[in-house]
Amino acid sequence: MTEKIKVGILGYGNIGRGVELSVLQNHDMELAAVFTRRAPESIKTVSESVKVLHIDDIYKYKDLINVLILCGGSATDLPEQGPKYAAAFNCVDSFDTHAKIPEYFNSVNEAALLSGKTAAISIGWDPGLFSMNRLLMEAILPQGESYTFWGRGVSQGHSDAIRHVKGVKNGIQYTIPVESAIDRIRKGEQPYLTTGEKHLRECFVVAEDGADKTEIEKAIKNMPNYFADYNTVVHFISEDELIKNHSRMPHGGRVIRSGDTGENNDMRHIVEFSLKLESNPEFTASVLTAYARAVVKLNREGRTGALTVFDIPLGYLSPKSPEELRKELL
Amino acid sequence: MTEKIKVGILGYGNIGRGVELSVLQNHDMELAAVFTRRAPESIKTVSESVKVLHIDDIYKYKDLINVLILCGGSATDLPEQGPKYAAAFNCVDSFDTHAKIPEYFNSVNEAALLSGKTAAISIGWDPGLFSMNRLLMEAILPQGESYTFWGRGVSQGHSDAIRHVKGVKNGIQYTIPVESAIDRIRKGEQPYLTTGEKHLRECFVVAEDGADKTEIEKAIKNMPNYFADYNTVVHFISEDELIKNHSRMPHGGRVIRSGDTGENNDMRHIVEFSLKLESNPEFTASVLTAYARAVVKLNREGRTGALTVFDIPLGYLSPKSPEELRKELL
Repeated sequence: MTEKIKVGILGYGNIGRGVELSVLQNHDMELAAVFTRRAPESIKTVSESVKVLHIDDIYKYKDLINVLILCGGSATDLPEQGPKYAAAFNCVDSFDTHAKIPEYFNSVNEAALLSGKTAAISIGWDPGLFSMNRLLMEAILPQGESYTFWGRGVSQGHSDAIRHVKGVKNGIQYTIPVESAIDRIRKGEQPYLTTGEKHLRECFVVAEDGADKTEIEKAIKNMPNYFADYNTVVHFISEDELIKNHSRMPHGGRVIRSGDTGENNDMRHIVEFSLKLESNPEFTASVLTAYARAVVKLNREGRTGALTVFDIPLGYLSPKSPEELRKELL
Repeated sequence: MTEKIKVGILGYGNIGRGVELSVLQNHDMELAAVFTRRAPESIKTVSESVKVLHIDDIYKYKDLINVLILCGGSATDLPEQGPKYAAAFNCVDSFDTHAKIPEYFNSVNEAALLSGKTAAISIGWDPGLFSMNRLLMEAILPQGESYTFWGRGVSQGHSDAIRHVKGVKNGIQYTIPVESAIDRIRKGEQPYLTTGEKHLRECFVVAEDGADKTEIEKAIKNMPNYFADYNTVVHFISEDELIKNHSRMPHGGRVIRSGDTGENNDMRHIVEFSLKLESNPEFTASVLTAYARAVVKLNREGRTGALTVFDIPLGYLSPKSPEELRKELL
């Protein structure tokens, strides 16, 4: 592949910026343009030379980019943008509302099949790399239990929930895996564990002046779905501390399968895949970029429609040829 | 898929036995027959009902099995059997002589393309699951270092090498990863490490009566390629102890990538895939069985020739439909 893959970025938040940075690391790719709903001149990209255009101009790039990476959110952006842009571009997105994936898949698939384009949906690490490992481990060891742990890392949903509590000025929530639960599994136990038994929730809260901290703590800890079923810890801190100590976006987690083989299921095997990420958005963006390469290759081979991590052979993610991969990495 | 996948096993050693056990765990598969070069009546399978036939009768099963799992060794069995049986059957094998994979791939590919069959080669955990992770991690984080650690587990090659030393009656060698090296990587260092800096070699040796143990230890520790570049420990034990404490076949290992993203490569990410296996042959056999399912599905779709773990989408490994996979595991 001598001609570089031309990438478009739609939406320039943390993920969009991460994609720009990832494309710079991949020498078979180049960034063609960033598209935004904001005023293009208000966007400050990493490389000064990057073209930033208003989203209304995106169709001018229909034949100038090979793949569009949708960097919007799953709540409102992607349900609209996914099918819309798959009607004109090869696409990659990180749609992560687990319960709505089947519906989203169908709408993107329909659009992409009609346009003859290829769209990789729900790409990232969960859904994404973790999903791949859940499938792989279960297929190899059908007799067993799988466990997914998240963290230590910031949950945007839980942080938002905190910020909506009366008397809260600002706040952030870390999901923390329970190490003793992980150790039990690694040592060969196969316990039944609820999400609440696998995770703690640690909150750092900035209270408004004069707010009742006891009430805030109670409101957070009793919040159904978000906190009530968890061991939740609430710390009150100043806004300065929040900005100084909690502005980074680390995350991570692990998928573990404990499975058995043998005549009496007497041989136990532990398979584990883990991530420890200093920047959740930059890593997610790097996954999106690798799948952008795959989408372009698959489309060139005539494979159209929506695809997930379950459908895409790993070889397509690499800039190396199948021969090189067999020689160097197998 | 209402009709079960009919599996044939060629070669009934530890791996062949493991495949029989794995097929019993997979309700969409059934074992059609075991083929052997030995006298069929000398083979004791796990299920008494299994048909055991001499390898000369294998072509009678050409239309009675959907996939043949080749359970022979890479040194002499597979180079001959791989292309030979891909000319008549969908096949899966665990060819693991890394340096000869390209050549082996070509010969199996040629045979399978001619016959219209599908053959998955070099399936297992290394090559296999570890290769997949090396590719995946490098594609996502092109800026970084990858590390493969093996063990704690028995190396057949090194155990054989010990047994050929003068004065040695029997022996076994464990490859042991250096925990301090793993810790350095997990903590964020990106050291350059030789294989010898990543692994120790621990040998349990039964000496012949009257043999010079000092000479044996020296001969082992100075053996080029096998031991000379490693920190090697030699223990002398009795034959009884060897049988009692060293007859199991545990193994495992890990692939780790430490990679960087960001404007100044200032965000470090650690991705790790690890295995802790109580039975190396049973786990390897379980991987082969999952890929046997994939091979049958791919052949039905017209995808013929030789394939590796880099070519096969993960969804094909599962008995679940794409819809179920998206709903349950994504």
